[in-house]
Amino acid sequence: MTKPVLILGGGPAGLAAAHSLGAIGRESIIVEKEDRLGGAPIISGYAKLVPTGEWAKDAIGGMVTRVQKNDKVTVKTGATVTAFDGEPGAFTATLSSGESLDVEAAILCSGFTHFDSVNKPEWGFGTFPDVVTTTQVEQMISSGQGVRCPSDGRKPKRVAILLCVGSRDRQIGREWCSKICCTVSSNMAMEIREELPDCHVYIYYMDIRTFGLYETKYYWRSQEEFKVKYIKARIAEVTSDGEKLIVKGEDTLVKRPITIPFDMVVHAIGMDPNVDNPTIAETFGVDLEEHGHIGSANRYGGMAQTSRPGVYVAGAATGPETIDDSIAQGHAAAMAVLSSFESVMEQTA
Amino acid sequence: MTKPVLILGGGPAGLAAAHSLGAIGRESIIVEKEDRLGGAPIISGYAKLVPTGEWAKDAIGGMVTRVQKNDKVTVKTGATVTAFDGEPGAFTATLSSGESLDVEAAILCSGFTHFDSVNKPEWGFGTFPDVVTTTQVEQMISSGQGVRCPSDGRKPKRVAILLCVGSRDRQIGREWCSKICCTVSSNMAMEIREELPDCHVYIYYMDIRTFGLYETKYYWRSQEEFKVKYIKARIAEVTSDGEKLIVKGEDTLVKRPITIPFDMVVHAIGMDPNVDNPTIAETFGVDLEEHGHIGSANRYGGMAQTSRPGVYVAGAATGPETIDDSIAQGHAAAMAVLSSFESVMEQTA
Repeated sequence: MTKPVLILGGGPAGLAAAHSLGAIGRESIIVEKEDRLGGAPIISGYAKLVPTGEWAKDAIGGMVTRVQKNDKVTVKTGATVTAFDGEPGAFTATLSSGESLDVEAAILCSGFTHFDSVNKPEWGFGTFPDVVTTTQVEQMISSGQGVRCPSDGRKPKRVAILLCVGSRDRQIGREWCSKICCTVSSNMAMEIREELPDCHVYIYYMDIRTFGLYETKYYWRSQEEFKVKYIKARIAEVTSDGEKLIVKGEDTLVKRPITIPFDMVVHAIGMDPNVDNPTIAETFGVDLEEHGHIGSANRYGGMAQTSRPGVYVAGAATGPETIDDSIAQGHAAAMAVLSSFESVMEQTA
Repeated sequence: MTKPVLILGGGPAGLAAAHSLGAIGRESIIVEKEDRLGGAPIISGYAKLVPTGEWAKDAIGGMVTRVQKNDKVTVKTGATVTAFDGEPGAFTATLSSGESLDVEAAILCSGFTHFDSVNKPEWGFGTFPDVVTTTQVEQMISSGQGVRCPSDGRKPKRVAILLCVGSRDRQIGREWCSKICCTVSSNMAMEIREELPDCHVYIYYMDIRTFGLYETKYYWRSQEEFKVKYIKARIAEVTSDGEKLIVKGEDTLVKRPITIPFDMVVHAIGMDPNVDNPTIAETFGVDLEEHGHIGSANRYGGMAQTSRPGVYVAGAATGPETIDDSIAQGHAAAMAVLSSFESVMEQTA
């Protein structure tokens, strides 16, 4: 194999794939539409990551630096792929700059798009300044500013985190679960309690999905050590009495309406398919699955295959995914590319 | 790198790691304590896998065959590792046979142990023959026998699947969530309804954790297409009236006691740490995490590291894990081993 592998997207999955290929001497080219590498954790300014507790700028930033130092990896930022022709082992990618690249294969690590809370207007985002998203709270924490009410900069005394905003919601065409918001929200609740010990934090949920070992580390720890309160509820609306935000809904465990005042309401926003997926699918000639994520096939024989031979996919491009699993899939996709070439070489030997 | 990599365990993670190493010309030795490869999906006779719907014997069986045909992979079944000395790049492993192996590194893919339902006696397993486990139902399906009541071979008309048996249960020292039982149970409920269209299937749950895209494919589909009923309940006991099994508990949504008769009750058993973990930890000199799984470190810099340099871990050895993620982690761990040697080589060059 002499030609490089094209990696679309420089987030956790793409960085892992490039590192893996570089580690065994294979070249890759990362094409990233943003002006820098790192994907959502860097571009959106995440704070401490689940489950390691490392700061995103260190953890993912370290992956970025490692790739930038690797002379087997070429990085093209502010660029997209406009055409992808050919066949496995002999593809030609055309970039938005007009540049043309000869590549062996492609790995789509194009990630997701954060749900835009304005699409859930009855929950107050866009209407009340102190209704914010998990991403905004991540930024408050990672910037060092601390968790403050945007309206007047005060420290909130009562915060509600609403789960499943843009997830598990058929009314707005998002039937899927976004997988990691429950755990991220538990983690965020603890961070808020740590910074503001007098602040009460409530999490409104449908089901708590702190799967695997997250159960102990996030769900139980947040309740027992940090006194975070969990309310199983169906939320009707978020309004204001002029002074406080009011979360109205029904506690589905006691079947009673509940109306609670808060200083700040946080939308735990879900993971939409990347808004660019229709274009990516057309350019690369790959199928999308029913919700608009990039379809991935059987993973027993060949990890990370799409519907087009020679084009692979990894990470949140396939659907809501954790950072850890995105990284594992990035490495695995790199292996899938290499092992497919071994097969080709054996067949032609 | 001239010496092979030791892979402990020949389940999905170990098979993936061996394949990846072999695909780029590196040798590995799989040491498997059972008499054949395949891990839980093969040894325990799983039926159709989540989420592909492929039969375990084809999907994982195919991974076994691929590894067996790979001349870079040596397989030692019916064997364990009794000592592991040395340092990265120069370890010596001693096997139970007395054989000694020089290896570069080790990847622990030693998986989990199914929870033994006799440890939850009030839920009827071991007392009533028609109280079975998800593994037993998998075997009924994969053997072609079909889902039948063990007591008399009749087709059940009413089946209850109880989630979180050996998971999220502090009373019996299993605080963690086993991650995939919700989805596996939704899948099994659909398989039962497909084989026995007259059979009513109920799933008793605490939280439904069909995360990510499983939400649509399993949770919603099982309800809408297959009319599986979900009951949020706290289960008190499983008894018998001499004819039917009786599941007693409290419906936690309506706060009422519920007592429902069934022909068959299925325990959705959780994933315990491998019973061999204390021995494995001592032999390989690695730390276990708080629940007894093999501890894995930061995954941004080096995927799959344990507390001992040169010893890696992948799959359910680290905690409850899906087959897919175990496979991705197996591939990723292989990459981590390779990339660690690149670093070593660069440093010594």
